[in-house]
Amino acid sequence: DLIKEAVTPAFVGQFPGVNGLGISAARLDIAMGGVVPLHTHPAASELLFVTEGTILAGFISSSSNTVYTKTLYKGDIMVFPQGLLHYQYNGGSSPAVALVAFSGPNPGLQITDYALFANNLPSAVVEKVTFLDDAQVKKLKSVLGGSG
Amino acid sequence: DLIKEAVTPAFVGQFPGVNGLGISAARLDIAMGGVVPLHTHPAASELLFVTEGTILAGFISSSSNTVYTKTLYKGDIMVFPQGLLHYQYNGGSSPAVALVAFSGPNPGLQITDYALFANNLPSAVVEKVTFLDDAQVKKLKSVLGGSG
Amino acid sequence: DLIKEAVTPAFVGQFPGVNGLGISAARLDIAMGGVVPLHTHPAASELLFVTEGTILAGFISSSSNTVYTKTLYKGDIMVFPQGLLHYQYNGGSSPAVALVAFSGPNPGLQITDYALFANNLPSAVVEKVTFLDDAQVKKLKSVLGGSG
Amino acid sequence: DLIKEAVTPAFVGQFPGVNGLGISAARLDIAMGGVVPLHTHPAASELLFVTEGTILAGFISSSSNTVYTKTLYKGDIMVFPQGLLHYQYNGGSSPAVALVAFSGPNPGLQITDYALFANNLPSAVVEKVTFLDDAQVKKLKSVLGGSG
Amino acid sequence: DLIKEAVTPAFVGQFPGVNGLGISAARLDIAMGGVVPLHTHPAASELLFVTEGTILAGFISSSSNTVYTKTLYKGDIMVFPQGLLHYQYNGGSSPAVALVAFSGPNPGLQITDYALFANNLPSAVVEKVTFLDDAQVKKLKSVLGGSG
Amino acid sequence: DLIKEAVTPAFVGQFPGVNGLGISAARLDIAMGGVVPLHTHPAASELLFVTEGTILAGFISSSSNTVYTKTLYKGDIMVFPQGLLHYQYNGGSSPAVALVAFSGPNPGLQITDYALFANNLPSAVVEKVTFLDDAQVKKLKSVLGGSG
Repeated sequence: DLIKEAVTPAFVGQFPGVNGLGISAARLDIAMGGVVPLHTHPAASELLFVTEGTILAGFISSSSNTVYTKTLYKGDIMVFPQGLLHYQYNGGSSPAVALVAFSGPNPGLQITDYALFANNLPSAVVEKVTFLDDAQVKKLKSVLGGSG
Repeated sequence: DLIKEAVTPAFVGQFPGVNGLGISAARLDIAMGGVVPLHTHPAASELLFVTEGTILAGFISSSSNTVYTKTLYKGDIMVFPQGLLHYQYNGGSSPAVALVAFSGPNPGLQITDYALFANNLPSAVVEKVTFLDDAQVKKLKSVLGGSG
Repeated sequence: DLIKEAVTPAFVGQFPGVNGLGISAARLDIAMGGVVPLHTHPAASELLFVTEGTILAGFISSSSNTVYTKTLYKGDIMVFPQGLLHYQYNGGSSPAVALVAFSGPNPGLQITDYALFANNLPSAVVEKVTFLDDAQVKKLKSVLGGSG
Repeated sequence: DLIKEAVTPAFVGQFPGVNGLGISAARLDIAMGGVVPLHTHPAASELLFVTEGTILAGFISSSSNTVYTKTLYKGDIMVFPQGLLHYQYNGGSSPAVALVAFSGPNPGLQITDYALFANNLPSAVVEKVTFLDDAQVKKLKSVLGGSG
Repeated sequence: DLIKEAVTPAFVGQFPGVNGLGISAARLDIAMGGVVPLHTHPAASELLFVTEGTILAGFISSSSNTVYTKTLYKGDIMVFPQGLLHYQYNGGSSPAVALVAFSGPNPGLQITDYALFANNLPSAVVEKVTFLDDAQVKKLKSVLGGSG
Repeated sequence: DLIKEAVTPAFVGQFPGVNGLGISAARLDIAMGGVVPLHTHPAASELLFVTEGTILAGFISSSSNTVYTKTLYKGDIMVFPQGLLHYQYNGGSSPAVALVAFSGPNPGLQITDYALFANNLPSAVVEKVTFLDDAQVKKLKSVLGGSG
């Protein structure tokens, strides 16, 4: 399947102990070749700490579309500013594990592909606002369970 | 060309009078058939007010990928929550004009297509984190001036 | 009558969609010669955008009582900092319309005349704390429905 | 003279020790019959604590123009919400002293009379936005040093 | 007894009028020789104003453990930054009274001795994390009602 | 020596990349038997994630002096609310390592022992505000380098 990672969140919904504390966390388990697809957290910055394996991560700044990427090994940390597009994937030869902490109790998560292809947003609208080809949009809607 | 709109911002950089006031604005002029492509504002919610023409707008929620769309006529308003993907386009038979106000002095702007296709983010990485086809990525990189 | 304008608020009470988004709005319709009397918004800065007609607006700074006034035409914007006294009136020869956006979901509204003359605050107290004459206070209490 | 009180502020400008601490203070000395005229603090709530004498204080809510007044004796406290019109005067037979604390380092101070009558805001504008009589406005402009 | 002061709080729990206003207060009555022991307020800065007697006060900065102490007489004020250890005691020959204001509605109060010696935190743990001697810990647990 | 741990901070001073992001981190290396002594962070909540070994941690609430303690193994997380006293020590048979994340870029650190015994705060004052015995205070001042 396309997405081989598992995210185990400790947001305020799953871990009420963080309520009112302005912080939350999640554990990432990324299989070999797995990916946390392009996404944003609308309500928090993220700090990622690699505990096992190798993770390739990047984010794109909003001011100039500059890309910041880094290969992260066990013990490395990287920050992803609030609201900016970013991604992680396992580029190594073993499973990768990371702890991510967030600067708020309920950071939110918007995966770009799911926002575009896993709902009933009409293909014609997706194409108009992304400039993607019709065949591409329909293919990904099919893969990700969207309609329209 | 692909993008037929013009955004005239009155963010704190262009309009220093808003400094410290927690608010800013922009004027949108969208030609017939023009589009403000899929984008986010990482640091503010947006309130759109149509002053001329017809605008089709939508945003996608992060909790369930639900799509909220609306056809807006002169005098209508719509809000776009901070950090969520949204778009506007002119679906009418005349130019459209809108004032947008933001809940912060420097809302930021990240257009998804520019973040993916107007820089040197390698095509292989784009494909891995978006599941787009190689031909699609290379076509849009070519259109939007990206490399890699 | 004294006040010829109409304010149509889209605060969180009237427009629950802005809940949690840090922004709200109102539409102003000011008849020829009409006025939005001297007032403050205790909990938000205001951004005014003229969509029809001509509006004369001003605010008074707290540091030095300096007055900032401007004649605003269609398409002009002006900002009024949080908590400062300001006013708008229609100085033109046709109705004026404006959209106002606020940097918070519930900006509040305190019209100075209503605060002084439309309640049961005793005239003697009003006179002591404003230095207005007794006849003036009683006249305006009568016009605006106050007692005492 | 009209204003017989003395305000000794300990805002961030006078008392740099409060910088970054989110609090400030002022000492009020109100002579017999003296008054702190109708005013607002745009950027802080106020807590008043009487240390000598008797103070009559009040504030006016923005939601319904309801007046809250109280006669305060030595040791009494009263709070004035951020941005709302309020006043204090000495209604007793000896000087009154109070400490006031503010919920921010730089609360600001806008005295309504000074905002209207101690600057060059034209009398015609004052009258239009306050409904005060021309004679009243000109009298107070003369007393408080305004022009126009 | 060890603690001879009385604190009369006007936090949001005791004085609901401060709800939402971002400020609260307390009255301190410190008998001759009495002390407000070493403590912090986790959620507010404090401003102390002496109204009777003499108070010796101090706080310790977190960056370099620098101590700031001052002998305060009637009319003096001192600020204690949010979260830092501080204390007050009456070093004079008469009772001391002070008003303290806080930069938040619910500042909290953590008295170090009560945190260590007035609960069931095992003596062995207290000794390990404070380097205090066993006899000292057991003596204060006995005085302050702790167990373990 | 008394303190066998090493804290490697990634606060805004050491790791400027977190500037403006509302988050920071530190790495803890606690030798066998080592301890992070009783301390607070005045400006952030803390989230601790164990990556190696066993850590015994606890914090004390301010409302009732209730103690919350937990033995944490590899992969466990625990949160410490802003401004409250807490501690960690290695209770296992191998070195312990943890990542801690903070809900702010510059959390601050106040170690109670250093605040009391590693500066020139006079012993008589320490004794008065902590009820510790003179011999105890002088012993720890000697160990931790304080004077007075």
